[in-house]
Amino acid sequence: VLRSIGDDAAVVEARAVAVSSIDAVAEGVHFESSTHEPPDVGHKALATALSDLAAMGAEPGEALLALALPEGYGDDSALQLVEGARALARRTGTALVGGDVIAARALVVTVAVTGWADAPEELCGRDGARPGDLVGVTGELGAAGAGLLVLRGTRPDAPPAKLEALTARHLRPEPRLAAGRALALAGASAMIDLSDGLATDARHVAEASGVRLKVQLELLPLAPGVAPVASAAGRDPVQLAATAGDDYELLVCASPERRAALEDAAGAAGTRISWLGEVGSGSGLALVGRGGQLVEELRGYEHA
Amino acid sequence: VLRSIGDDAAVVEARAVAVSSIDAVAEGVHFESSTHEPPDVGHKALATALSDLAAMGAEPGEALLALALPEGYGDDSALQLVEGARALARRTGTALVGGDVIAARALVVTVAVTGWADAPEELCGRDGARPGDLVGVTGELGAAGAGLLVLRGTRPDAPPAKLEALTARHLRPEPRLAAGRALALAGASAMIDLSDGLATDARHVAEASGVRLKVQLELLPLAPGVAPVASAAGRDPVQLAATAGDDYELLVCASPERRAALEDAAGAAGTRISWLGEVGSGSGLALVGRGGQLVEELRGYEHA
Repeated sequence: VLRSIGDDAAVVEARAVAVSSIDAVAEGVHFESSTHEPPDVGHKALATALSDLAAMGAEPGEALLALALPEGYGDDSALQLVEGARALARRTGTALVGGDVIAARALVVTVAVTGWADAPEELCGRDGARPGDLVGVTGELGAAGAGLLVLRGTRPDAPPAKLEALTARHLRPEPRLAAGRALALAGASAMIDLSDGLATDARHVAEASGVRLKVQLELLPLAPGVAPVASAAGRDPVQLAATAGDDYELLVCASPERRAALEDAAGAAGTRISWLGEVGSGSGLALVGRGGQLVEELRGYEHA
Repeated sequence: VLRSIGDDAAVVEARAVAVSSIDAVAEGVHFESSTHEPPDVGHKALATALSDLAAMGAEPGEALLALALPEGYGDDSALQLVEGARALARRTGTALVGGDVIAARALVVTVAVTGWADAPEELCGRDGARPGDLVGVTGELGAAGAGLLVLRGTRPDAPPAKLEALTARHLRPEPRLAAGRALALAGASAMIDLSDGLATDARHVAEASGVRLKVQLELLPLAPGVAPVASAAGRDPVQLAATAGDDYELLVCASPERRAALEDAAGAAGTRISWLGEVGSGSGLALVGRGGQLVEELRGYEHA
């Protein structure tokens, strides 16, 4: 970083390939002030943007943060919000190099991130899935969705520490940067981050790749605590895990001969891959239930 | 551009040095729906961000656009807004490579831009002004401020075409990319874009450089039509030109031996430099009136 906050623009030494993304979150839509403290909001805004870099296999570089603050949003809250982003930036090796603060009629936080790679081939898009590929997912699903239910008042019969782990997954989503980088380098054919839920995001891969993804719902790796929360809320835990957004795990496709390499890469990055199904010709997403029947009309959260 | 809209992130081949900035504009603060059509808003959001690249002397590269749209903001309006940004992007050689659209409780448009240079020495910050330097400004000042007065109802005795030229300067500010690049390469010591008005932005250069800027107000190059509009509004035209924001001209400092080179560079970029004063030791900004007296307490628009 050659120039940073305090000039008209930030200046950094570049690597060969720049990867960039922008994400905005708004009060009342992506978070509520009743459940999200200012540092949570800053964390979430940066995490969602970094997650896009993870899904490409890029290494995080710089971030720019724009705060649109409503009247009455105090300086202390704004500083805490920035500190929430800054803490995640530090931990992920991201430099917070600039920003903008404006007055507005609502709280909107926008983050633009730049990541880097040394060659385009190191990166992985949404469009490379091919018939015959396996479909997998990192980590465990449903925790953020269950956490949101808990934040909204669902009270299952479970120890407080377990519930807190779930709400933390919603309040402080973790971009899977190391996993994304490792999986892209290990030969993933397509990748996407699960921001809107598998039922929606897997469709994006199918569309971009011109293929059909088939996912066995019973193979979804449920996070601990999802089942009791879903039950207490009268929801099917597997459907919750397939449709709730904000898990920010990575959906990955790869040819079967890459299977071991991807599993090793995930393990080295501190996570694991669960294989959920396969890629076929055709279009769209087939979600297959326990008895082999197609589960129709299951959609994740669609951002407006 | 290797990957663009439709993937998790945009991918471009980089040059040696990346320059990045983010700017947000909000309805009711930076623009009003009563006076700004959707394409104006898209244009303005991108123009303010590109202007930061101009002030560094960077060549524009890519832009990311995040729209936070309130309920009832139609798809047509959103598309027109994007088209307003896209038209400016095309004209300036900027690639609109990605974006985000979210629902929110207010209209907030955020643009992140990346520009490029082949070496850090090609760029110019705010911090390089030195005692003995000249202080200059590109183009003419006050047009955007006068245009805003016209938009708000001031009706001077002037032909409609002239008034339209003023309102256009407010509605469609033009980032001085060619001039900024040329001036940086010609050896400007410090540069800033006049987004908040000279009376504020010149202070930023003084602060960043640790010097005192002295500007003769009578040397400000008033844009045609500013005087009658200011008179009709009961304002002093020179003070209007010094304090109104949104002109997006460039304030530039340079050692006297660079004077001719900068003038030539500005001319080649289709504009001119007016020399307004000089840099001295000390701190802050001295605005000097016609009789040589200091004009105190003159401040430009300060973004919240």
